[in-house]
Order: sequence, then structure tokens, then C-alpha cells
Amino acid sequence: MESIVFESHPSRYRHWTLTVDGEVATLALGVREDGGLRPGYQLKLNSYDLGVDIELADAVERVRFEHAQVKAVILTSAKDRVFSAGANIYMLAGSGHPFKVNFCKFTNETRLSIEEASRESGQKYLAALNGIASGGGYELALAADDILLVDDGNAAVALPEAPLLAVLPGTGGLTRLVDKRMVRRDRADVFSTLVEGIKGRRAVDWKLVDAIAPRSKFSEVANARAKALAAGSNRRGHGDGIVLEHLAATYSDTVLEYSRVRVTIDPERRQAEILVRGPEGRQPQTPEDIQRIGSAYWPLAVARELDDAILHLRFNHSTVGLLVFRTEGSPEAVLDVDRVLDQNSDHWLIREILLKLRRTFKRIDQTARSLFALIGPGSCFAGTLLELALAADRSYMLADDTRPTRIALGPLNERWFPMANGLSRLETRFLGEPQALDKIRAHQGLIRPDEALELGLVTFAPDELDWDDEVRIAREERCGFSPDAMTGMEASLRFAGPETMETKIFGRLTAWQNWIFQRPNAVGATGALTLYGKQSMAEFDWRRT
Amino acid sequence: MESIVFESHPSRYRHWTLTVDGEVATLALGVREDGGLRPGYQLKLNSYDLGVDIELADAVERVRFEHAQVKAVILTSAKDRVFSAGANIYMLAGSGHPFKVNFCKFTNETRLSIEEASRESGQKYLAALNGIASGGGYELALAADDILLVDDGNAAVALPEAPLLAVLPGTGGLTRLVDKRMVRRDRADVFSTLVEGIKGRRAVDWKLVDAIAPRSKFSEVANARAKALAAGSNRRGHGDGIVLEHLAATYSDTVLEYSRVRVTIDPERRQAEILVRGPEGRQPQTPEDIQRIGSAYWPLAVARELDDAILHLRFNHSTVGLLVFRTEGSPEAVLDVDRVLDQNSDHWLIREILLKLRRTFKRIDQTARSLFALIGPGSCFAGTLLELALAADRSYMLADDTRPTRIALGPLNERWFPMANGLSRLETRFLGEPQALDKIRAHQGLIRPDEALELGLVTFAPDELDWDDEVRIAREERCGFSPDAMTGMEASLRFAGPETMETKIFGRLTAWQNWIFQRPNAVGATGALTLYGKQSMAEFDWRRT
Repeated sequence: MESIVFESHPSRYRHWTLTVDGEVATLALGVREDGGLRPGYQLKLNSYDLGVDIELADAVERVRFEHAQVKAVILTSAKDRVFSAGANIYMLAGSGHPFKVNFCKFTNETRLSIEEASRESGQKYLAALNGIASGGGYELALAADDILLVDDGNAAVALPEAPLLAVLPGTGGLTRLVDKRMVRRDRADVFSTLVEGIKGRRAVDWKLVDAIAPRSKFSEVANARAKALAAGSNRRGHGDGIVLEHLAATYSDTVLEYSRVRVTIDPERRQAEILVRGPEGRQPQTPEDIQRIGSAYWPLAVARELDDAILHLRFNHSTVGLLVFRTEGSPEAVLDVDRVLDQNSDHWLIREILLKLRRTFKRIDQTARSLFALIGPGSCFAGTLLELALAADRSYMLADDTRPTRIALGPLNERWFPMANGLSRLETRFLGEPQALDKIRAHQGLIRPDEALELGLVTFAPDELDWDDEVRIAREERCGFSPDAMTGMEASLRFAGPETMETKIFGRLTAWQNWIFQRPNAVGATGALTLYGKQSMAEFDWRRT
Repeated sequence: MESIVFESHPSRYRHWTLTVDGEVATLALGVREDGGLRPGYQLKLNSYDLGVDIELADAVERVRFEHAQVKAVILTSAKDRVFSAGANIYMLAGSGHPFKVNFCKFTNETRLSIEEASRESGQKYLAALNGIASGGGYELALAADDILLVDDGNAAVALPEAPLLAVLPGTGGLTRLVDKRMVRRDRADVFSTLVEGIKGRRAVDWKLVDAIAPRSKFSEVANARAKALAAGSNRRGHGDGIVLEHLAATYSDTVLEYSRVRVTIDPERRQAEILVRGPEGRQPQTPEDIQRIGSAYWPLAVARELDDAILHLRFNHSTVGLLVFRTEGSPEAVLDVDRVLDQNSDHWLIREILLKLRRTFKRIDQTARSLFALIGPGSCFAGTLLELALAADRSYMLADDTRPTRIALGPLNERWFPMANGLSRLETRFLGEPQALDKIRAHQGLIRPDEALELGLVTFAPDELDWDDEVRIAREERCGFSPDAMTGMEASLRFAGPETMETKIFGRLTAWQNWIFQRPNAVGATGALTLYGKQSMAEFDWRRT
């Protein structure tokens, strides 16, 4: 299969149109039916595939960085009478299991980024449903702050996946129904088994949408609601944003090369090394200087490149089972950048950069690959980059007096990079030992390998004699285990502590969906997903589990 | 397959020995190798199958009811050098998917009942590991309050499932590691990939066990720790307990008949009706009278019979997709019983009865079958029995003036029957509308259908004209949907709100395990579980998801 490209730009969008009018942006979905990422399916009724969602993810992000003044975004359809029919079913039915799972994960991340833009960046979302919103179409609406449905006797919202296709709504729909919109569970049950969905007044009464409006007044009401959302925003951005420049990247089967990130892939050993280079030379000290440098600014470049690399690894290198993080540079230089970010975190742009880093680290947490960090001489796992070691399933730090290796916490680690569970990676790590956290906070200066081991910040600190063998064996052994068992194990161990809607979506809902995506009742020869649109009826194995 | 029987009694145990010595009980595991529930596997090394766990569940419950004075329970092995090797792998490899899933669910419920006995009944558990505790053996220990491991250079604790069998530890092991014992996630990662496990001092340092003791002092240390646990217990029981009498039940393919519960199964329509009869005649008013009646006391009989019926339906009637709850009797009579329970809830026996009801309702919540409640004339969905309607995925109440139907809340609903998420079923139902709860609380007297609908306590209230068709169509339609889609949907809609270790075990961990139990890497022709103990090596599809 050809490599999937994750970079996009409004000038190249095929399915979305972004327009900005003062404080309100509009994202209109007009899917090109013949514009699928792969041949073999038509994107009818504004149904989407990964390509459509890559554009949406790009748009949500660009509005945050490039349109500083925008306080509300209207999600609507450029087509008449249909908002969106959700993920394209023929595309799903024709996809392999790993792709289906990763597709759902990516679309989930995009919807969570909409909710994060609202909560953290004050860009509020209105879903203006000018026609039927079904399946993933309604799930997209559920990510918005406010849902307006046209009341024309026809347009409805629906989650027909379970009754129609024998799968679950794959983008958080069930969870958002009961946990975000707090629809009563019995109503959610009825709604989720109703292929035709619910429209009009009942959709409001059941809290499935926030308001309805007749077709004649729809635009007017939508605009008024968007303005109201903007009025309630606390966004501080004004004037120009920065341009997210094209990532100057080259991709091959064995190397993904960016400006600050280099990924080296060993397909035979099923491993990849992700090297992140620390800041070099003089770094800007004020938001104004940072704004001038724009997307070339080190932390933003690192976040965008890492994010892109992780997506490439997920989709284009599916047999790579182990990602090994390395860094190169000066720990002090990273900490210097962290201090500038920390001191200016109330500036809208600095805040956006911090949030982009946060999302990137979360994307790493949610990546179904084993993660090791190798901390050796010349590395800079300090501050922001220490998060990579803390996100890893385990870490190895070389204890060698002749080639000193150091790690360090910075001012950002505990404040700015919560995981999906709402806790920082340090809090999650030391859930049972808050006193360990106090010791780490009290530590002065850079941290030596023996100290890091004692403080619990690294898993192992072998000396030079043992390092090569210990690390090599651990890497090889890890890549010999069943990929599925590692995925389930890592998903269970990474997110200790409280659960949130986000962890529920990725843990509970995704796991059930993955299960169902394996079940003959959905994907077998007579499964409902397989037979969708064909003449034959699905045949089920009736045994319940 | 022959029907599985869930009732047991210490006099019939084949694998466990229960002894009671004052405040300390001991449960010793000595599995009969040829005592498997089915032929085809040998239960070597104290490995277990469902039959072994049915005895354990029975023992945990009997100690609570029949041994009022017991404050600590020692779980140990009757065999030398091995505590338990966990669930028998040949049994698992030879089981179908629905059985595997239900087996894990039952064993999870048993381990949770141990934790509940400790937390709610003051019967504290010590796992005295006099030999290796591997896989499910260690997971059983993780359910205890205190884990003591013999330090003999050999005995270790281990979770070898992922590296050895390409599946997950199936009884909460991963979740309890990081969420209960709060083992650091990187250490949990290392431990869970180490087939040989961890022993001695390191097991203590990594918080995998609480203490170690040399073989020569093991019994002495175990007894001392059990006494210390008993000393810390707040259990109020003293003197004699009550005897849990044999359930006088008859089972056929179409009827499960108990004293207060009758289950009618329609295999063709894949539906079952569960009828619960309310209390009849004069009910005891004091704990002393209740103790005299013992397990024949109405609420305890209902709980035990319902619990047994649910287990039969899960294991012996796997194609039944819909359970329909009905009740018969006087709402006032149920409320009278509830008042007696409420007023005496600090008596140890009344408390145990309430907790047994709680566990039974939780077992219903966790049952992967669709649940409807049908509320008609002559029914008594009041107080305790209202929980059945609240546990249902939806409820229908007949609105017929000529044959009045009433429901009612009682004093127990909000206090005594939390779901796995820690909230009452009412709180979960009205998560987004606390004011709705206030209205319900303020309601005086029994609740009419129109009021129940208005208060949000029932889903639908059709009149007599519509009732038959509406209910019949809903039932038929439900049984026509894919069983797997319904399972995933219901698991996602039933547990809104906060998550707990318990919901994580049933939601996140179970869902991942179910997924893995479907994956070719585990159960395919060259999967690791399939090939365990054979000469050939597993062959994996290396694609990660």
C-alpha cells in the first residue's frame, strides 16, 4: 500500500472549506465522492475516510495557530440535506484490522482535539447540522460544544452502527452520549438501536442536540449561536497568528528525516529509533521573537515533527513493534527553552505551543507500540524531552563515570503535560508514593544515573559492561512477544489512576470496538459489516459472551 | 455440554479445605488433578478451572454468613512448593470464546467478592504463598489485603501470560498491579514480561508482595500476620452465623424454578423471563427473628436464587440474548421488608444480606445480555426490587387506569446498592440531572405510570392498546441484533460516571482480553495459546494495531 501522508493545507483540501470571518470560522464539509484515499469506494453522503479526517485535523490545528482571533468555529455541511453519514462503510469493510483500529484512533484524537481547542484555547465549536447526521457524522457533532439540528421533518441524528452493521460507533459516540451529554442510559439504549435516529423536538428533549431551527431560519440561528459561543470564550489571541510552514521531511522505508527529528527504521528487527535533537544556538526569549520565528521555533518544530513521525509509524510501518527514544543535545539548553515557555504561558501562542506538545505526548501514550527510552551520553532528556522517557514503558540510563549522562526535570513537566487520565506522567508514575515526588522536586541540579535510579525516574541504570547486552536482549525479547498481547498489556499499565472520558474512549470503548472488529458477526463471511449493501442478510452466531 | 452447577458446599469441596479456628479461617487449595469440570485436562500444579472457582466463591460467601466471628482468612496451598499456577491452560485452550469470557468474568467476580468481604464485612484476607504463585495464582493473591511469600530461593510471583501465552492475565492482574498495589508502571511492565517472575527481597522492593519469610518460619509469620489483620478488623459478628441452606431448585432447558424466582426460557426466541415474587405472609421484624429464619428470609432467598439463575443463564443458556424482569406481589410488602433491613443495617447479618443483594445486582449489571423490565399490574418493582428495573437497559410500564400499576423507591435504593462505578443506579441514571433526583426523593407514596415517566424512572409507559405490540416488537428486534454489538454497546452505556478499579477490570481489561482471545496470535492455528505445551513455536502476525 502506498504511504499515507498526514500533512495537509487548506489550499490542498479536497473535502473541507475553511473560511474565517472575524471571530468566527466556518468549516464546511463537502466530500468529493471520488476523492477517497484508496480506490474501491465512493464517499457518498458526506461520508468520510482517513483522508477527509486528516484535513479536518489539519484545519482544527491551523485555526488555533494561524487565526489568533477566532473564538468560535462552525462545523457544517456544504451539501444540502445531509451533514455527514459518518465513516464510509465500504471503506471500513474493505480495510484490514490494524488499519480499522488505527483509523478509529486517529479520528478519536481529532475529535478530542476539538474538545481541547474549546476547553484550553477558547475556540468553541458549534455543530450546525443542516441535514442528517448519522454514525460518525453525529459523533463529530458530539465533539462540539453546541449542537443545532435543522427541523425540517427529515433531518435526524442517529447512531445506526450496532443495529445496522453489528459494530459500535467508533469515535466515542456511546461514551459521549452518557458521559458528556449525560443522556439517560435507557434513552441512550433506545437511541443507539434506532437505525433511523431521532429528530425534532424529541432530539432536544432527550438531550441529543441542544436546539432545533427550521430551515428558513437555520443560518440565522447558527450564526447567532456561534456569536454567543464566541462571546463566552476566554481566548486571548488577537491580530495575526503564525503560519504552520510545510514540514521539510523526507520519507523512505527506513528513514523519516525532519529538521529536529530523525526516525531510523529496522524493518527486519521490527524496531525504530526516534532521535530528537535539542535546541541549538540562540533561542528567542520573548513571545514576539517566537512569533517572528513561527513554526521553526524548536519546541513547535519538535512537536509537529514527532507527531507526524508517530502517525507515519502507526499507519505506514505497522510491523514495527518497538519505538526507542533517543535524544541528542544539551539538557541545559532544553531547560532554558522550557523556562521561556513557562514564563510566557499566558501568551496565546506560547499556550498553543505547549498544548501542541501535550497532544503529541498523548498521541505517543496512545500508540500501540512498545516504547523504550535509551538515555546515554550526549543526550538531553530534560524538561519537555524528559516526557519521552516518562512516556516510555521502560527506560535504560547508562551509568558510566567517564561519559557522564544526566537527566532533569523542568518547570513544565508537572503543569503542562497531563496524560489522558488528567495526571502528569510523574504523578501517574508515583501514584502510590507521593513522597517520592517530593524528593524529586527537592532535587537540585541535573540528575546522575545513580540518583535517577534511586529517585525512581528510570527503570534500569546498567554500567558500560552490561549496557550493550542488556539493552539488546531487552529489545529483541520485546519484539518477539505477541503484538496483540503487548498492546493489551500496555493499554492496561500505562493509565493507572483516575479515568476520564478520554481514557474511557481509548480504553473501554476502543477495546470493545476492536473486539467487535474481530468477531465473525461483524467481519466474517456472513457478518453484517461484510454484507452491508449486498443483497444477503447477515447471519449471526447467537451465543452471547 | 452438560449443565454447570453453581451451588456447592464445604462437605462436597474437591479442591479447597475450609477450617475455622476462632477469628481466623483458613482456605487451603489442594486441587485434585483429575477433578476437572470437563474431561481433557489435568489440573496440575494447583491450576484451576471453573469448578475450583465455584468452590472458592462458595467458601468466601459461607465464611461471611456461617462464621460470624471470623475476622481474617488465610488463603494458602495444601501442596508443597506451589501455591497455584493459575487458570489451567489446556482448559482455556480447549474452551470456546463465550466460555472463556464468562469463565474470566466469574473468577473476576469471585476476587472482587474477596475484596468486598475485606472492605465491607471486615473479613481480611492474607495470601500465604508457600510456593510459586503464577498467573491466576498470583492474581488471586492480589485480591488479598496482605501477601506473604515464602523466601526459599525458588518461590516467585509471576504473570507469564503475555510473554508465554500471548494473552493477558485474565483476572485483574494488570489493573491491580498499577491501580491497587500501585507498582510503578515501568516495573509492572518488566514484571509482566518476565516468565519466571520475581522472588525474595526484590518482590518486596517492587511492592509485588508485602513480606517474605523463610520456610522454617513461614507458618509462624503467616499466623501472626493473620492475627494482626483480625485485630484491625471492624467486624461486629459474634457467635453463630446462619446456615446457607441448599437451594431447592429444579433446572430444565426451559425452566429454572426456585422458591421465590422462576426463570422461563424460550430458546427459539432467545429470550428468558425472570419472575421474582415479593414477600408473602408475616415477615420477621428483628435481627433475631431473621437469624432464626436464616437463608429462607425473603431478601436473602431472592438474592441467592437470582444470583444462581444469572449464572445458569450465562453459562448454560448462552444463546439467550434478552432477559426480561418481571415481579409479582405487593409493593408495600417489599417496602416493609426494606424498612426492617434499613433499620437494622448495623447488625452483622442484616449487613451481609444487604451486601449479598448488592453483589447480585452487580452481577446482573455485568451480565452480557440485554435487560428489559416489564412493569405491569400486580407487580412489585418497589424498593429492593426496583433495582431490577433500574439495572435494565430499558423498562416498559403499563399505563392502564383499570389495572393500576405502581412502583416505589425505598430507603435502601440510594444507600445500599452502588454499582461498580461507586454510584447508585439512580445517581448513574440522572448523572446530568441532580434536580431530577430531588424530585424523585420528594415524591410521596407509590408512583403511577404517568408520574414514573415524568420522573424519568421508566423508559416508556404505553397504554393497553399499544402495550402488546410495542413490547413484542422491542423484544423481537433486540434479539435480532448482533450479540457482540449489543455486548459492546451495553458495556459502554451502563456505567456512566466515575470509573473504579472494578469498572476498569470489567471494562478496560476484560475488553482487551476478549479482543486478544479472538486474535489469531493467541487462538489461531499457530497461536501461542493453541500451541502451549506442544513442540511447535507460535507464529505471529507482526502487525501492530
